[in-house]
Amino acid sequence: MASRELVVLGTAGQTPTRTRNHNGYLLRWDGTCVLFDPGEGVQRQMVLAGVASPRVERICVTHRHNDHCMGVPGVLNRMALDVPGRSVVLTGPQDAFEHLRLLAVVAAAGVEVTVEGVPERDERVEVADVAGSRLSARRLDHRVPAIGYRLEEPPGRTFRADALAAAGIAGPDVGRLQREGELRGVRLEDVSDPRPGQVFAFVMDTRDHPAVVDLLSGADLAVLECTYADRDAELARTHFHLTARQAGLAAARAGVRTLALAHFSQRYPDAEELGEEARAAVAELGAATRVHVAADLDVVPVPPRRQGGR
Amino acid sequence: MASRELVVLGTAGQTPTRTRNHNGYLLRWDGTCVLFDPGEGVQRQMVLAGVASPRVERICVTHRHNDHCMGVPGVLNRMALDVPGRSVVLTGPQDAFEHLRLLAVVAAAGVEVTVEGVPERDERVEVADVAGSRLSARRLDHRVPAIGYRLEEPPGRTFRADALAAAGIAGPDVGRLQREGELRGVRLEDVSDPRPGQVFAFVMDTRDHPAVVDLLSGADLAVLECTYADRDAELARTHFHLTARQAGLAAARAGVRTLALAHFSQRYPDAEELGEEARAAVAELGAATRVHVAADLDVVPVPPRRQGGR
Repeated sequence: MASRELVVLGTAGQTPTRTRNHNGYLLRWDGTCVLFDPGEGVQRQMVLAGVASPRVERICVTHRHNDHCMGVPGVLNRMALDVPGRSVVLTGPQDAFEHLRLLAVVAAAGVEVTVEGVPERDERVEVADVAGSRLSARRLDHRVPAIGYRLEEPPGRTFRADALAAAGIAGPDVGRLQREGELRGVRLEDVSDPRPGQVFAFVMDTRDHPAVVDLLSGADLAVLECTYADRDAELARTHFHLTARQAGLAAARAGVRTLALAHFSQRYPDAEELGEEARAAVAELGAATRVHVAADLDVVPVPPRRQGGR
Repeated sequence: MASRELVVLGTAGQTPTRTRNHNGYLLRWDGTCVLFDPGEGVQRQMVLAGVASPRVERICVTHRHNDHCMGVPGVLNRMALDVPGRSVVLTGPQDAFEHLRLLAVVAAAGVEVTVEGVPERDERVEVADVAGSRLSARRLDHRVPAIGYRLEEPPGRTFRADALAAAGIAGPDVGRLQREGELRGVRLEDVSDPRPGQVFAFVMDTRDHPAVVDLLSGADLAVLECTYADRDAELARTHFHLTARQAGLAAARAGVRTLALAHFSQRYPDAEELGEEARAAVAELGAATRVHVAADLDVVPVPPRRQGGR
């Protein structure tokens, strides 16, 4: 699915550095885009990434700290400039509702903005349908109420062309078979294989918590914060963040296929150190998770679809 | 005066480009700093310019458009992180007061912020004393109320060491002579030369208007918007901006020594074209104004002090 990919716009936690802008993650998902946690400067990072004015239908914010949302007004301003009259939904935890509303007011943009507060619950809460996939959110464990997101495509079926031909089913009959499950004695399962839906997960500021594994469960691609190295685990605990080891263990337990680590503290000049730590944790559990240390302007594809039945 | 210089943080009008961030201009003026028109991303531009956390005592905004002030929350957040409890004054035209107040609320910073609205008048209005220099502002001609700023050091006198020695005046007596104008028959003017004060001017979004020359009058260093080339003069007029020719003529008429052109439209890939146009206008009037086309992260020194009496 070439049309499913993550464009990394910024990867710095708390303060930006020479090489890392504040957060910002643009998910292309078929015909639409969802922008996650745009921090200050994301408007320009979009220019640098060559995605200056994508069709963003939803901006998802994890919590009200400014390194995760200060870029909202700029993105709205840019949208208004390029395509006046567009509409966009701005989603965040209920706790961030007033802050997000203010950011929309500050933008004073020619864009129709709907601000939605998601209740912070200890289970997945349905948020919206995004291009046929289900967006849900669940409370994490941060200093202020924070939620993580999960985008899940429903399972489907892939037809086998040879089986269809042998059964003499073609044209509009294919759709009919799909809808009705059986046609002229041919059953859907005789001519098609199950196709698991794809899953994207986005988890930012949180302490280690079961909600992380739940949100990441079976994800094809997951973005996960990784602010500290494990030697600074006490800092991670007191500041409500993850270490790279915790991130790697969580992704491995959840069966994540590609893990994109992000939101690095500026205390680590080379984030590859954090990547190595996460990879060691994955290996410790014998998991197959591929660990990618996200850099600004990276494009990370959602891995090719899993094969059905396997 | 090595301690008087302009650090250019961004130079793009309206939308940022690959090479130009939104506006942002940090003036170092002796022991203090004034930040003018911080647009989005200025927090990070400060990191790139090596001035991540300067002692900013005042942020001066010319008008409420976001490309001139959306960086305020980020700058406040960074200040709060580095030196909690600092205080800063946020100044803008009266019209922008509510917008600036919202930006301070959005920052939710550990910084004491005082928002001040300057009345938009057709004469210079006194704003504040900045390190012994007088900061004033005057209304310009833009789509929304906009003001330009002028920082003016009062004139003083420079002692001639040889004349002081010949008159036998040394130590604390020098200060006494300066305060009292005469000491033991020696007059201040016998042993010193007049020292003109230095002037910095900052003029952003405006149509051509007499207020521009007034604010720039005799400036050692002036930052002036220059959104369009003269061939697009009609666009400049309808969008309430200056052309490079108008900027050059105004600076030449005002007797500006160094003119820093900024706030370029992205329609001109090479802003040097605008610089050439301004230089031609300066030459046409036989003026000595040096024209500098500002680029992001430039450091532009305030020219050496004029010699007294000349």
